[in-house]
This record gives sequence, C-alpha cells and structure tokens, in this order.
Amino acid sequence: MSFAPVYLDWNATTPLDDVVREAMLPWLGVGEQARFGNASSRHEYGRQARAAIDEARVRVASAVGAHATEVVFTSGGSEANNLFLKGAAGVFKPALLAISAIEHPCVREPARQLQRGGWALREIGVDAQGLVDEASWQAVLADRPRLVSVMMANNETGVVQDLARIAAQARTVGAWVHTDAVQAVGKLEVDFRTLGVHALSLSAHKIGGPLGAGALIVDKRVELTPLIAGGGQERGLRSGTENVAAIVGFGVACERARAAQAQEAQRLGALREELERGLLQCGASIFSAQAPRLPNTVFFAIGQIDGETLVAKLDRAGFACASGSACSSANPEPSHTLLAMGVERGLARAAVRISLGRDTTAEQVRAFLGALAGVTDNLRNLASVAA
Amino acid sequence: MSFAPVYLDWNATTPLDDVVREAMLPWLGVGEQARFGNASSRHEYGRQARAAIDEARVRVASAVGAHATEVVFTSGGSEANNLFLKGAAGVFKPALLAISAIEHPCVREPARQLQRGGWALREIGVDAQGLVDEASWQAVLADRPRLVSVMMANNETGVVQDLARIAAQARTVGAWVHTDAVQAVGKLEVDFRTLGVHALSLSAHKIGGPLGAGALIVDKRVELTPLIAGGGQERGLRSGTENVAAIVGFGVACERARAAQAQEAQRLGALREELERGLLQCGASIFSAQAPRLPNTVFFAIGQIDGETLVAKLDRAGFACASGSACSSANPEPSHTLLAMGVERGLARAAVRISLGRDTTAEQVRAFLGALAGVTDNLRNLASVAA
Ligand SMILES: Cc1ncc(COP(=O)(O)O)c(C=O)c1O
Ligand SMILES: Cc1ncc(COP(=O)(O)O)c(C=O)c1O
Repeated sequence: MSFAPVYLDWNATTPLDDVVREAMLPWLGVGEQARFGNASSRHEYGRQARAAIDEARVRVASAVGAHATEVVFTSGGSEANNLFLKGAAGVFKPALLAISAIEHPCVREPARQLQRGGWALREIGVDAQGLVDEASWQAVLADRPRLVSVMMANNETGVVQDLARIAAQARTVGAWVHTDAVQAVGKLEVDFRTLGVHALSLSAHKIGGPLGAGALIVDKRVELTPLIAGGGQERGLRSGTENVAAIVGFGVACERARAAQAQEAQRLGALREELERGLLQCGASIFSAQAPRLPNTVFFAIGQIDGETLVAKLDRAGFACASGSACSSANPEPSHTLLAMGVERGLARAAVRISLGRDTTAEQVRAFLGALAGVTDNLRNLASVAA
Repeated sequence: MSFAPVYLDWNATTPLDDVVREAMLPWLGVGEQARFGNASSRHEYGRQARAAIDEARVRVASAVGAHATEVVFTSGGSEANNLFLKGAAGVFKPALLAISAIEHPCVREPARQLQRGGWALREIGVDAQGLVDEASWQAVLADRPRLVSVMMANNETGVVQDLARIAAQARTVGAWVHTDAVQAVGKLEVDFRTLGVHALSLSAHKIGGPLGAGALIVDKRVELTPLIAGGGQERGLRSGTENVAAIVGFGVACERARAAQAQEAQRLGALREELERGLLQCGASIFSAQAPRLPNTVFFAIGQIDGETLVAKLDRAGFACASGSACSSANPEPSHTLLAMGVERGLARAAVRISLGRDTTAEQVRAFLGALAGVTDNLRNLASVAA
C-alpha cells in the first residue's frame, strides 16, 4: 500500500500472519512444495489435500478444546452462524428461538428468516452495560426455547457474556445452545467443553488467518440439515470442494492465536488502558466500561460528534478505525448494540470503535490520541463557528 | 510435490494459473503491493478492498456476457447452486421443481431438501447419450414447473445440453430457469443473454482460479432469499466478509478462461481425439460419444475392469484421473449420470474419467495410453490366472 494508514480496526479483519501465509503458499502453487488438489480425489493430489485438511482440523479443534470430528469447516463466520440456526431449525418443527438483542446481523437475520418461516423469535435484552439482562433471560427461559444463540463477545463493545452460565441454564430446559465466538477466539480463552454449548462459530480472518475459512464446532449429538448440500463433504454438513489453502491457514492461525492469547491479552490490555486514559482526557464516554470486555476493543463517543464524520477525518489523518459495526454493508442506522443497551440515538450515532491487534504498538496508540485531539478540536471549532 | 504424477483430472480442480496467482498475492500480503481489508470498512483499507472486488465483478460478468450488477459472489459452485434453488424456493409457496436426472449432487441434494419441505420434485430423464430426453422434458413442462435447473455441461460425461432451447421452453410456462455452468465456462462459450436463463452458477477453481470463490449470475428481476443472511453484502444476497484475494483471482481467471477458450477448445479437442483413438484400441467404450461434449473430457470403461481399481493402478503408475465423480466424497455407488443414461451397473462401475486442461501435453496423453495398456494387460492377466 503506497499510503499505509495505522490500522486500528482489527475486529473488522486482520492482516494475514506471516507464519500462516507460509503454510498457505504451497497450496497456492508457490515454492518448492507447491501443490494443489481436490480432497475428494482418490489419487496422490487428492490424498495430499485430504491430509492437509485433516491436520488443520486437529489444530482448529485443539485451539478451542474440541475434538477434530466436531469441526465443520465453512467459508467463514457468517456461514457458520447461518448453518447452525437454519440447520438446527431444519430438524425441528417450528418452536421458540431466542437470541440476544446484540447479536451480529449474521445471527439476527437468519433468525428473522426463521421467524418468517414460522418460528417464534424472542430477543434476550441486555442491560446498560451490554450484558445479558437477568430478568429478560429468565423470562425467555420460562418459555422453554428450543434454540438459543448468545454471542460470546460483542464485535462493537467487546462485552463478554457469562456463556457457561447461560448455556447451563438453557440446557435445563432442553435447548440447543449456540455461541458466536468469532470475536472471542485469540482474545479470550475459548473452551468448547467448559462453555458447555452445543455449537460455536469461528472465523479465520479475525485471528490472522485468511478470508474464506471458518468453522462451526458442533457436538456430535446435535443433528443439523446442511445449508450447502451436495457432494457430502464435512460429514455431509457442508458440501463443496474444500478450500485447502484457507483451511490450512485457518489451522495455523488457530494454533498461533491460542498460543499467543494470554500474552497478547495482557499486552493489548495495557495498550487499551493507555488509549482509554487518553480518550477520557479528550472528553470521551466509553461504552460498556463497567462490563467484562475483550482486551483489544474500545467503543466510545466524543460528545455528540458524529461517528461517521470522526472516522472519515481520522481516515484522512492516517488512522483506520470503525464507526458502528464495520462488518455490515452501507447502513446508516446507529449501532443496534448500543440501542439495545438503551443508549440514546444521538449518542449512539457518535460511536467509534478502536480495535487493537498483533501489530499495534504504543507509538501507534499515542499517535492516534494526538490525531484525535487535533481532529476533535477542529470539529469543535467548526461547530462553534457555524453556531 | 516431490513425486508429481501427470494430472488428468482437470474437471475435479485445476492448479492456480500463474497470472491469477500474481493478482492474488498482494491480497495475501505478499510483495510491494501487499494489502488487506474488509470491503465494508469505511477507511482506506476498506475502499481498496471494495475497488478490487468491483473490478473483479466486471471481469466475471464480462466473461459470461452478464452485467456486473448480476453477479453474486459465493464461496464456490455448490453454494451458488444451493443459493439459487433454496433462494428461489424461498420466495414461492411450494410448487413443482424440475431438475435433470444427471445434475451434480449440489443441485440434486438441495432439490431433495426442498422436496422434504413440500416441493414436488420431478427429474427430467436423459437418453442413452446423456442428453435431455425430449419426451420426458415435454411431460415435465406440461406440469408447469415453477423452477427448472438443467446443467449446461456434465462433469462426468462432458455432455453439453441445448440450454437455450430448454430455457426458452421453460420460460413459456413461466418457470425460472437455472443452469449449473461450472464445467462449461472456459471450455465452451457461455453467454448469459444467449442462453436466456434466469441464473447461472460458476466456480473459480475449475478454471485456473482459486478455491473459495464462485458466483451466481442472476437476472435482476429474480428475487431470492439469501442462503447466508447477515451483514447484507452482495446486495443482501450473500452476507459475510468478502474473500478479496479469491474474488480478485476469480475475476482474472474468468477473463483468461474466456480469452483462451476458443483456442484451448481446439487444442484440447485434438488431444482428446488422440486419447480416444488410443482408448478404443485398448478396447474401451466411450460414454456419450455421439453427443455434443466438452472438448476436454472423456468418460470411458474398459470391459468390466473396475473403475476404482483402474484409477488406483494408474495412480501408482503416476497418472491422476477419476472414477465416477471426483467432486463427491467417499461414495461407492456407480455414477448416477450413467445409471440415468440406462448404462448397466456393471459397466457403470468400470467408468473412468480423464479430463484435460491448460498444462496437458501430447506427451502426457501418449504416456498415459502406454501406462493404461500396461495396467489393463496386467489386470487381465491377473483375472485369467485367477479364473
Ligand atoms: C461477532 C461476529 N460474528 C460473525 C461475523 C462474521 O464473520 P465472517 O466475516 O467470517 O462471515 C463477524 C464479523 O464479520 C463478527 O464480528
Ligand atoms: C457440474 C458441477 N457443479 C458444481 C460443482 C461444485 O463446485 P464447487 O466445488 O466450487 O462447490 C462441481 C464440482 O465440484 C461440478 O462439477
């Protein structure tokens, strides 16, 4: 990139980790070890592809404390979430589906599709900090949902839910519990057994892996109808020629994310502390500041300065960050996560997200704070001139 | 690959084209132009990703005579087929769905899922050559199907259907017509307008592009419910962070496949003629020999020598080819394409597919014929000793 702004949007996507890339390149035909193949082919090319996928499956499973046979590779997190919701709904008569009010659109939208297909849909409310609201959750539980999906960590606020407790309670009413752990892996410890969920979604590109790979980790006792049916790959749960390079990269990315997790959490947590001190000095309010949060994420607002405007100015100043959720397309609505927390619309429109990652340095954080001060002063001056 | 067998299985997957790889590598962080980004992000990284996707969209569209706004990127051909069938079924009350009897499993299986969901499913029979049988087709048409899916070229026999005629007739009864053109692109001229279909599926890895990208080309008047719902990417028809590298590679692969198509068809056609002469001398029967076929594909049987066994022996002799369809997972059933053509099970079990491609040379074809003669002599001797 001729002009390389400071990247502070690691929850949107991450650059490919060097070690991950090295593992992938042979499968893209680069180097001495260049190779390719359809893993279903019964010849040397196919067997090599199959072996590489099997190895990646073990890596992904180990990173989240699951068994290799519980991994269903998908094209990403959105597909994994859709596979769980539609796949599980496909084996039952329409019943009650409960999701939290702050799910990513790739949980919320398939849930609404199921609602149009006859399922009852209930949203579990969150409190002002963005944590699942106990009263709302107990009320939903009392109606005995068949399926429950609550995200482990929110992509905007970074709020981490007490999933193990939610899963245990949901199990008492016989629900199948799913969690979107796309933002959690690599930032928190994620253990499939400890969480006690039936299924868990992952995405490679959020953890230094490539775009094009993700997984649904799914308990073997859970039956699903395939979202993509066909040749019968992935135990019949996900057909289509396997994306070997991406799957190999995903495996390595999971392994590395797991290995670095504790240390990175500490390092990024310290950087975020410095960032937040600076933000508070700038007059920012920090959303979900009192809740357990991902160590790398801060979602804030500076007065009523429009978030979009701030992000655009910061972009021009050489800092890449997000307003609302960067995962969804052109959508001028304020963050539904903040609205669900009861944040007033004007303040929600001011929201900006900074998410740190592997390459973030203290210098970058300090430079960002300097730029932010300049930009906000400027906007305030413009505002006072206009007034 | 330390040991590199001759690859004669280009319908299963293809090695990445060098020019395609060069276009992709920057998006995998390689070289001076290294870059990455979530195309939904509203900063420099995101804009660059968006621009690259837009460019690829134009390339893919041009290669099949469509408009860029008609391209919906997916993770591959299987997803594109599932998206059309389930997406179109999602906007209607259950009615009649007609597919040919020789569709790839990624059309057949979603069709069966729809059948379980209340749709009537009719299979359009094929004749002994594998072409849509006129009487069967007219009988299905008379029942006024709502959706029709007939593949343009079969992955096993290579048989090419008269899709323009089928589409025109299906339109007279108000059906939406889809064609799986995964095996056709790059081997035939494929023109969305001339075909007159409502939707058409493509896959990058069959044409020198990467695994992980495909597309559904879809007429703007066709409404579809998304298979993967969420952030609203691809005009709301396919959510999930776009796989920029794969999409960029797919665009270049389409452009190159289109540019080389006429010449490659001629070159591969000549090689196949030589191959078929040799096969006939070996005592082979060639399936669909009287039908219009892809220039690169030959599906044959040698007496009643088991296809699996022959492929395994050829693999050991250094030649990679397929028995039945290599696209589906471990499935010991004989090819359903051949069974639909009325081929007797014993002969169907003997089927072997050779598919040629970009790197195939006359020397490889000759070496293959030599190896085949050796392997079959050997198997016949073993058989006569055993007898
Ligand atoms: C919480 C969460 N879930 C799911 C997704 C979707 O993952 P993917 O982009 O791999 O489809 C994202 C981001 O895009 C996310 O932040
Ligand atoms: C005719 C046909 N359609 C669809 C597919 C599926 O494409 P993909 O592997 O990209 O999912 C294949 C091969 O796998 C095929 O040969």
